[in-house]
Amino acid sequence: MDKITRRGLMYVMSSPSGAGKTTITRALLRNNDNLSLSISATTRKRRAGEVHAQDYYFVEPDAFQNMIDNDEMLEHAKVFDNYYGTPRAPVDKTLSEGKDVIFDIDWQGTQQLSEIAREDLVTVFILPPARAELEKRLRERSRDTLESDSDIRGRMAKAADEMSHYSEYDYVIINNDVDEAIKKAQLILDAERIKRRRMAGLSNFVRGLKDGL
Amino acid sequence: MDKITRRGLMYVMSSPSGAGKTTITRALLRNNDNLSLSISATTRKRRAGEVHAQDYYFVEPDAFQNMIDNDEMLEHAKVFDNYYGTPRAPVDKTLSEGKDVIFDIDWQGTQQLSEIAREDLVTVFILPPARAELEKRLRERSRDTLESDSDIRGRMAKAADEMSHYSEYDYVIINNDVDEAIKKAQLILDAERIKRRRMAGLSNFVRGLKDGL
Repeated sequence: MDKITRRGLMYVMSSPSGAGKTTITRALLRNNDNLSLSISATTRKRRAGEVHAQDYYFVEPDAFQNMIDNDEMLEHAKVFDNYYGTPRAPVDKTLSEGKDVIFDIDWQGTQQLSEIAREDLVTVFILPPARAELEKRLRERSRDTLESDSDIRGRMAKAADEMSHYSEYDYVIINNDVDEAIKKAQLILDAERIKRRRMAGLSNFVRGLKDGL
Repeated sequence: MDKITRRGLMYVMSSPSGAGKTTITRALLRNNDNLSLSISATTRKRRAGEVHAQDYYFVEPDAFQNMIDNDEMLEHAKVFDNYYGTPRAPVDKTLSEGKDVIFDIDWQGTQQLSEIAREDLVTVFILPPARAELEKRLRERSRDTLESDSDIRGRMAKAADEMSHYSEYDYVIINNDVDEAIKKAQLILDAERIKRRRMAGLSNFVRGLKDGL
C-alpha cells in the first residue's frame, strides 16, 4: 500500500500589538515538534539581548535589497523606516520535509504570501476581547520600553489599522482567555493538517483500494 | 460590546459502504449537543425496525416528485430504482438557529449541495485502511442481509465508484482506528466552527475595539 505523506503548511498569525499573538505562537512551538518559526530578516539595528538568526536575521540595507531583487524574499515591507521580510529558502526547505512553518507577520506580509502560496497558507487573526484590555496592554508595553505619549498614540493608530484587516483572514480567534485561544490555534492547525489537498499519495492509495473490487 | 454569533454549518460525511461512516456519525451526534442529523426522504419501502422521521421520511413517489418540483429538496438522487433526497426546510431552520447539521450522503448529493451552499458546507470523505478490510466488511454486511453473490458484486462495484470521488472533498480521513477517526472528525468540526466567515457580528465588534484608539 502506498504511503500517505503530507506537504507542510504555512500558518500565519497576525494581530494588533498587545492581543497575545506572541504568547500563542510560543505555546504552539512548544507543543508541536513538527512546527518551526519563520525567522524574519530586518534592516533595523539589533537591540540588546537579541540574537542573530534566532530573533531576526540582521542584514544591511544593501543585502536586503539584493535579496528582494533576486526573488529570495517571500514577502517584505517597510515599517517605521526599517525593512522586514521573510527569506524564502528556509521556508521552502521545511515545507518540502512535510513540516509546518508558523509566521508572525502583519497584514501586508499576509497579503503578499496569499498571492504566491494560497494553497499552502492558513491564516489566523487574533483579536483582543475588548478595547480597554487592548489599551491597557499597549500602555504596559510602552511603559516597558519608555515610549513617549506620541509613540503610544502611533502604536494605537497602528493597532487600529491592523485590526481593520481581520476580514482577510481564514480564522479569527478572540483572545478572552489565553489557554482557550491556544487550544483554538492548535485545533485549527490539527484540522488543516488533514485537509485532502495537503495529502500526497492519495490517488495511488485509492487505486490500491479499488483494484479488483 | 456586540455579541458574536455563528451560522450553523453543513457537515457532510461520505464513504463507500463499510468504511465506518455510520459509527463515526453516531459518535459525533452523541458528543455534540449542537449537531443534528439530516433525515433523508426516500421512496423505498420501510424495512422492519425502521421508524418514520427517524431513519427516513418514507414518502410515496408522487409526494417525492412534488417536493422536487416545489424546490423543497436540497439534493436528490435515484439509487437502485428508489429515490433519496434531503428536505430543505428542517436544514434551513437548524442552520439559522446557529446549529450544525450532519449529512450522511453520497457523492451525488454532495455535488448538488456544493452547487447551492458552498459557503456553509464542509465535506469529509472516509476511506477504509486497506482493500482486504473493506472487502471483509462488505461481505459481513451482505451476509447479515442475506444478499446474493451478484448483490455483493454490485455493492463492491458501487464502493469502487464511490471512492473515485474522494478528490471532491475538503478532508479525507483514513479509518485505521475508529477512535482516531472520530477524533479527527471532531476536530475538523471544531476548527470549521471558528472560521471567520461563519461568525456574524465581527465587523461591529472590531469597530468597538477601534473606536477612540
